[in-house]
Amino acid sequence: MSDVWIGAAELRADAAALLQAAGATEEDARITAEVLVASDLRGHESHGVARLEPYYVRPLLRGVINARPQMTVRHETAATIVIDADNGLGQPAAKRAMDRCIAKAREAGICMASVRHSNHFGIAGYYAMQALAHEMIGIASTDAGPLAVPTGGRMAMLGSNPIAFAAPAGRNRPFVLDMATSAVPVGKVEVKARRGMPLPVGWAVDVEGRPASDAADVLDRLDRHLPGGLMPLGGIEAGHKGYGLSMMVDILCSVLAGARAHLGDSHAFTTGEPADVNHVIAAINIAAFGSVEEFTHDMDAYIDGMHRVPPAPGVNRVRVAGEPEFEAEEDHRERGIPVHESVTSSLHALGVELGVRLHLKT
Amino acid sequence: MSDVWIGAAELRADAAALLQAAGATEEDARITAEVLVASDLRGHESHGVARLEPYYVRPLLRGVINARPQMTVRHETAATIVIDADNGLGQPAAKRAMDRCIAKAREAGICMASVRHSNHFGIAGYYAMQALAHEMIGIASTDAGPLAVPTGGRMAMLGSNPIAFAAPAGRNRPFVLDMATSAVPVGKVEVKARRGMPLPVGWAVDVEGRPASDAADVLDRLDRHLPGGLMPLGGIEAGHKGYGLSMMVDILCSVLAGARAHLGDSHAFTTGEPADVNHVIAAINIAAFGSVEEFTHDMDAYIDGMHRVPPAPGVNRVRVAGEPEFEAEEDHRERGIPVHESVTSSLHALGVELGVRLHLKT
Repeated sequence: MSDVWIGAAELRADAAALLQAAGATEEDARITAEVLVASDLRGHESHGVARLEPYYVRPLLRGVINARPQMTVRHETAATIVIDADNGLGQPAAKRAMDRCIAKAREAGICMASVRHSNHFGIAGYYAMQALAHEMIGIASTDAGPLAVPTGGRMAMLGSNPIAFAAPAGRNRPFVLDMATSAVPVGKVEVKARRGMPLPVGWAVDVEGRPASDAADVLDRLDRHLPGGLMPLGGIEAGHKGYGLSMMVDILCSVLAGARAHLGDSHAFTTGEPADVNHVIAAINIAAFGSVEEFTHDMDAYIDGMHRVPPAPGVNRVRVAGEPEFEAEEDHRERGIPVHESVTSSLHALGVELGVRLHLKT
Repeated sequence: MSDVWIGAAELRADAAALLQAAGATEEDARITAEVLVASDLRGHESHGVARLEPYYVRPLLRGVINARPQMTVRHETAATIVIDADNGLGQPAAKRAMDRCIAKAREAGICMASVRHSNHFGIAGYYAMQALAHEMIGIASTDAGPLAVPTGGRMAMLGSNPIAFAAPAGRNRPFVLDMATSAVPVGKVEVKARRGMPLPVGWAVDVEGRPASDAADVLDRLDRHLPGGLMPLGGIEAGHKGYGLSMMVDILCSVLAGARAHLGDSHAFTTGEPADVNHVIAAINIAAFGSVEEFTHDMDAYIDGMHRVPPAPGVNRVRVAGEPEFEAEEDHRERGIPVHESVTSSLHALGVELGVRLHLKT
């Protein structure tokens, strides 16, 4: 199996058309397609259109995701906002939540949104990066179905629970951290499974708590809620830290939202019930703390300092979070986005089913 | 060498007396002693009175830390506050910053403080935990002198850059995460050096980027700014995540504060100049997001869920961040705090020098 190459605009149009055919509004479909293709552009195939059918189109068609949600503001203070996403697509809910945070942080200096009754929202980094154009720092995080095992345990209880953090620089590219608090995001295990490759040691544990190598087996056991799962960040030596960070994300997303789906051993993601995903989104207005010009200047000095660190043998240059993704994006804007043939053929079958003619070649 | 045991109240009084003899005000000395002994009580000898002389008393005596600072508010919005600590002790500055955050978050729902021109503040968890009694979530973090090596590099550029996060529960103990974003905090390397024990693999790298075992050598190279240092959280497999989290802390603490001491390759900590340490402190008012009662109830359900996870072989029970520290504190309140004989004798020499008679036995 090989890759099919396509331009970002065409892939975005295809994804939006399929989402609209599944019932989403034009704007919701456009935003969701934009976020998915942003992931492919940034080199994260794991969170891109490969997930369009199973995570978004099928749940829309089955009514598990509400295609016509009414987002409402439940509660609001000067610097906080509680948004009910009405079980709609996660991408438009999170994007609009960050828009509101940015607007409120202009006055209040900071704003944090709790977005509840939402769905899987793709890459957290997308929403954190919305803040960059407004001279703000952006933060985004979400809960997710259980994938990772708490330190000392054998059963998956923690989502990949990403932490995304974006801060603007001057000459240099912005700092964009977007990391799972598991040792790896499950999307990377899916890529290994799709490509039939073994898992590196330290990514996941088997039923006994030993390192697992069979990616498909790990995914299958997670689906069926059997013992085993991903390891938290830090692995055997310091996994208690990744475990703690992951609980922190759950507390800010699930517990603060009053959501119980992710507490205890519920597995809504795989049961056909609404997933009840919850996000936390925040914007920090740099101007509330000092000069924006000095901030971006100091960011440049800080990043330059990292670039100047003598590299270890075999390393070309020390890089900073977000740089590999910006480089992938430049490359993909020029050469197009590679889509794995298995994804291409399933999208085409979906197009036929929904009466959508795709730009994507077979 | 063995340990000398002492009650928390006596140790607190000794530490405060030494700090006052070094010039600190009564209140600043009391707060600083309180935070240091809280670390010893919680089982973190690394951040306790073992550091009283080198980190606080000597710099006060030399005038490197300002014994009579005038804390000022530089800027304030509804939900942010910028505090200049005037190069005073970090503990009173951070404690008062959290007091202000708690007061402001009552109205605004959230408040974040940038504390600049401060000094080493001990355990970050202390300030995060201040929020618990006010039905709030607390967050605290600080920059620090370079200790950890960016992924792919050979020179320490990153502090231990801790992230502390505390959230209240109901029946269960509060969730208290207090972790260095380095693989380990340098205090743990200091403990190994003091006790003459080798470093576990994955804690630090030597001049070539290979695992280091000699704790004293690692500390010496860090002091002299030679290649080598701690590894970021995630080690060889996922160290880019710890590296990213550590940069996030630097951005929120140093860059947002307009501090340049921690950017590039400055090493103020070891040069006898003011350390120019910067903290970020935040409080999130749970009531701004929903019912506090439901929150603590759901926290209990979440923590209970972790406790119910079947343990891996050799593990008694899955625990949650903060539990080992609460258990150590109970034990130490009952039996006293063990202070290593080397610390005891240096504190006694200091007492003789400053004319302070200690409760601590030799």
